Amino acid sequence: MGTIVSLHQLTTEQEKQVRAAAPGYELFIGKAQELEPEQIRQAEVILGWSKHISEAALQPDSKLKWIQTWSAGIDKLPLAELEKRHILLTNTSGVHAVPITEQIFGMLLSHTRYLQQAALLQHQKTWQPPKGELTELRGKTLLITGVGEIGRETARIAEAFGIRVIGVRRSGKDAPHVKRMYTNEQLHEALGEADIVVNILPFTEETRHFFDEKAFAAMRKGAFFINVGRGGTVYTDALVRSLEQKHIAFAGLDVFEEEPLPTSHPLWSLENVLITPHIAGDTDHYAERAVDIFLTNLNAYTADQELPLNLVNYKTQY
Amino acid sequence: MGTIVSLHQLTTEQEKQVRAAAPGYELFIGKAQELEPEQIRQAEVILGWSKHISEAALQPDSKLKWIQTWSAGIDKLPLAELEKRHILLTNTSGVHAVPITEQIFGMLLSHTRYLQQAALLQHQKTWQPPKGELTELRGKTLLITGVGEIGRETARIAEAFGIRVIGVRRSGKDAPHVKRMYTNEQLHEALGEADIVVNILPFTEETRHFFDEKAFAAMRKGAFFINVGRGGTVYTDALVRSLEQKHIAFAGLDVFEEEPLPTSHPLWSLENVLITPHIAGDTDHYAERAVDIFLTNLNAYTADQELPLNLVNYKTQY
Repeated sequence: MGTIVSLHQLTTEQEKQVRAAAPGYELFIGKAQELEPEQIRQAEVILGWSKHISEAALQPDSKLKWIQTWSAGIDKLPLAELEKRHILLTNTSGVHAVPITEQIFGMLLSHTRYLQQAALLQHQKTWQPPKGELTELRGKTLLITGVGEIGRETARIAEAFGIRVIGVRRSGKDAPHVKRMYTNEQLHEALGEADIVVNILPFTEETRHFFDEKAFAAMRKGAFFINVGRGGTVYTDALVRSLEQKHIAFAGLDVFEEEPLPTSHPLWSLENVLITPHIAGDTDHYAERAVDIFLTNLNAYTADQELPLNLVNYKTQY
Repeated sequence: MGTIVSLHQLTTEQEKQVRAAAPGYELFIGKAQELEPEQIRQAEVILGWSKHISEAALQPDSKLKWIQTWSAGIDKLPLAELEKRHILLTNTSGVHAVPITEQIFGMLLSHTRYLQQAALLQHQKTWQPPKGELTELRGKTLLITGVGEIGRETARIAEAFGIRVIGVRRSGKDAPHVKRMYTNEQLHEALGEADIVVNILPFTEETRHFFDEKAFAAMRKGAFFINVGRGGTVYTDALVRSLEQKHIAFAGLDVFEEEPLPTSHPLWSLENVLITPHIAGDTDHYAERAVDIFLTNLNAYTADQELPLNLVNYKTQY
C-alpha cells in the first residue's frame, strides 16, 4: 500500500477526489515542518516540495516515485539527485498563464497610462498631468522570450490590443498569434524589432544570464522590458546600466537574481522601474488549478499510464 | 470666399490636406488668444473651441456654420446658442477609444495585480508581498454604462481577457461583444450583476448624477468602479461614502465633478482609490486621428454633403 503526502491544504472536496483517484493509498496532509520524517520517507507520491523534506524524501530506502510540485519553476529542487533516482517530476506549468498574462499587461499599462506616477502623486494629493503625450500599446511590436503556455496566452491578448507579437523559443516552432518565431540563436535580431520585450524564460543552465550586456544593447532605444520569468535569466548589472543610461525606457520586474531584492539595490531607486515582489503568478484560482493538474496526473499514475500533464524533462529542465 | 480657422497646430502635410479639401478657402492657424477677433468673426469653419473665441465667433454678423471640436465632450460649448443658430457641431468621438480602453484595463489591473501598492512600497524600498491572494479579471462580469465607440472597444478587449460584458445604453440596442444590453431604466438590475462597473457616459442634462446613492447601493459588495466618462455623471459624495464603507472595493477615477480635484477632497486620502488627472484620452495619436476626422468631414462639407462623422444631436447632446 502506497502513501501520498500533500504539503498543501486540500478542501474536503479535493481530499475526496484524491482518495477516489488513489484507492488503497494512505494520505497525509500537512506542512513540511509538521509532518514526521517517517511519513515523508514512506511517501511514494508528494504534492508540493520543500527543502525541509529533502533529506527524509531522499533517504536510500525512501519510496518516492513521483513529485507533483506546487510551482512552475523547479530550479529549487535537487534535480540531479531526482534524475539519478528516476523520480517522475511534474510541475504546475499553465496554472500561471492567466495571472501572469494579466500582470504583464498591468505592468505595461501602469507605465504607458501614467498610473505608477499617478499613485505616487496621489499620495502627495497632487494633481499633475504628464509632461509629454502618453503612448499606446496598439501598433507596437512585442517580443516574447520563452513561448510556452503563458506566452501563448500573452500573445492572444496582445493581438486583441492591436499589438504585433513575435517570439523567441528554443525550438523556433510557430505558435498561434505569434507573427514570427525566432530561435534562441536569433535573439539579437528579434530584440532589434521589438518595442516591448517580455521575458517568460524559466531558469535553466542554458538560460542563465540569457539577457546579458549584448542583449540589452541589441534592444531598441526606448524599449520596455518586462521580466516575469526568473531573475537568473537576466544579468542584473547590465539591466541597471541600460536603465540608467535610458537606453531602455522602462522595466517592469517581478523576479530578481536575489529575492527579496536587497534594500541597498540600485533598482529600487530608478524611476523607470516598476518592482513587484514575485507575485505575477499569484491568483485566487491557484490551488484549484494546481490540484486539478495533480488529479489528472494521479488518475493516470494509479492506472499505470504515463503522466499526461507537465512531465519535466531533466535534460531541458522544463 | 470662406474662412477656416484652426485653433490647433497642423503639420505641413495636414495643412496641405486641409487646403486641398477646401480650395478657395482662407486658412488661419493659431491659438485662441493669438488670433484677431476679426479673423474669428470671419470663420465659417472652426477646428477646435475655446471660451476665448466665443464672443467673436458668435457675433450677430459672424459667418460661423460648422465647429469641429478637438474633444469628445461638448459640455463646455454654448450649446443652446449654437443650436439656435443651426451651427453644425462635430466632435472627436472615437479618437479616444484606444487610449481610454487601455486606461480602463490599466486601472483595473493596477488594482488587481497589486501595482498601485507596489509603486508606493517601491518608493520606500520595501519588498512586501500582498496579504491576501490576488484576483483575476478572467471570469468576472463587467458592466459598461454608455456603450458607444469606446465601450465597444472595451467590450472587445474584455472578451479577450475572458470577462463577461454587459451594458447599459439609452437605446437598449445590442452591441458586439456585449452579452446583454440593458436600458437606462434597468440600471440597478444591471449593476447588481456586475463585479466591475465602467462608466463612459458623457455629461448631459440626462446623465447628471446618473450614479447616485441608490446606484452605488445597487452595486455588489466588493465591486470595482471605473469612471472615464465625465465627473458630473457621478454624485461624488455617494461614491466617497460607498468607498469609505468598503461597499465598493475600489474606484479608478480619471474625471471628477470639480477638476483639478481640490487638495482638501476626501478622495485623495482613500486607499481604495486610484486617481489620474483627466488623462484617459491622452494619446500620441490624438492630433493625427482628430485631423483625419476633420478632413473627412471637410471633404463632405465643401461638396455640400452631410457631415459623415460625429455630428452632434443637440437634443441628446452627443
